[in-house]
Amino acid sequence: MRMAQVSEHSGVPIATIKFYLREGLLPRGRRISTTQAEYGEEHLRRLRLIRALIQVGRMPVATAREVLAAVDDESLSQHQRLGAAAWALPGPVPPEQDGSGPDETEQARREVSALLARLGWQAAGPDSPPGQALTAAVATLARLGYPCDADHLALCARAAERTAEAELDLLESFPDRAAQVEASVALTVLYEPVLLSLRRLAHVEESARRFED
Amino acid sequence: MRMAQVSEHSGVPIATIKFYLREGLLPRGRRISTTQAEYGEEHLRRLRLIRALIQVGRMPVATAREVLAAVDDESLSQHQRLGAAAWALPGPVPPEQDGSGPDETEQARREVSALLARLGWQAAGPDSPPGQALTAAVATLARLGYPCDADHLALCARAAERTAEAELDLLESFPDRAAQVEASVALTVLYEPVLLSLRRLAHVEESARRFED
Repeated sequence: MRMAQVSEHSGVPIATIKFYLREGLLPRGRRISTTQAEYGEEHLRRLRLIRALIQVGRMPVATAREVLAAVDDESLSQHQRLGAAAWALPGPVPPEQDGSGPDETEQARREVSALLARLGWQAAGPDSPPGQALTAAVATLARLGYPCDADHLALCARAAERTAEAELDLLESFPDRAAQVEASVALTVLYEPVLLSLRRLAHVEESARRFED
Repeated sequence: MRMAQVSEHSGVPIATIKFYLREGLLPRGRRISTTQAEYGEEHLRRLRLIRALIQVGRMPVATAREVLAAVDDESLSQHQRLGAAAWALPGPVPPEQDGSGPDETEQARREVSALLARLGWQAAGPDSPPGQALTAAVATLARLGYPCDADHLALCARAAERTAEAELDLLESFPDRAAQVEASVALTVLYEPVLLSLRRLAHVEESARRFED
């Protein structure tokens, strides 16, 4: 299909598609004349992913380019490519904005290490990007006077484990490895607001159960 | 204690404390002379909450003022006050920025209604703030070509239910009703990055289990 049809099918304006092409986020189409190129399904799929990263994940263009490079890197194992999203996506709390001092951060790092050991999680340590994000979040809680309870953290981690299993099942239902990797990145980002909204609804529900007359 | 000590204990600069006083977020201290006021533990606790809302929750000052008014409103039931955070906090996806059309939003609203009915959740409907946030997130997924699976959503909701129970247990461990309400608001905001980081770590772990040689 031509660029006008890509725009129509995806709902992305032509100017935005041209911007993504220029920035190297979207691969060029197959050139069929000096002024026209042909685009395929893979371009539509990639456009969905770019919008998930930039619009929903609010990711800077340079970071999106890095994530997409990992998605496309055939030399990585499928685990590494599927993990690219969880690994390379910017964490929910950028450590430099967290404001915690070195003592709180060091203490939080020890708590995160102990948690990972207790869970038997070995694939990503406390110094991986999501490990650092967790450390920053735990340090912020301590700094604001709400230190984390180790049992409570472990319980939340076990719940995350169960939903991760279901999410990987969902990913494996996508037709091929490239689509799985793209879906992994997109769903990591797109399900965050779903999960946070469900948590708030569950809070309201549980609070009603306990405190409503 | 005097304002200088409040600043020292909380780590909040005096200029910031004066800003919170001026904006009506922090109650005035008990005046003990024409130039000095006395502050207590309740001011320290309130400062922690204000920082959780504004610094971590990135909440506008006007919204923080509304949440704090609900926290302080003795005419509300404890359920309503504990629910104030989940209810009044700005959702993870502001609907007006979501970009979904009316058809996608209407379809998503039906899916959210069906989910709440299936779960037996009755305290907050699809038109409550967290219900609207969920609807917007589900509509975005559909718009970007990843429609939600009803069974998967229900599974995520059940996991949220279990962590909500544990979170309410944690809240009930706070000494009095005012402290519980403040902790409810603070923990709703402060645990979001914890839970999102745990989810990413769980993804990396589960992906390693399935795909690593």
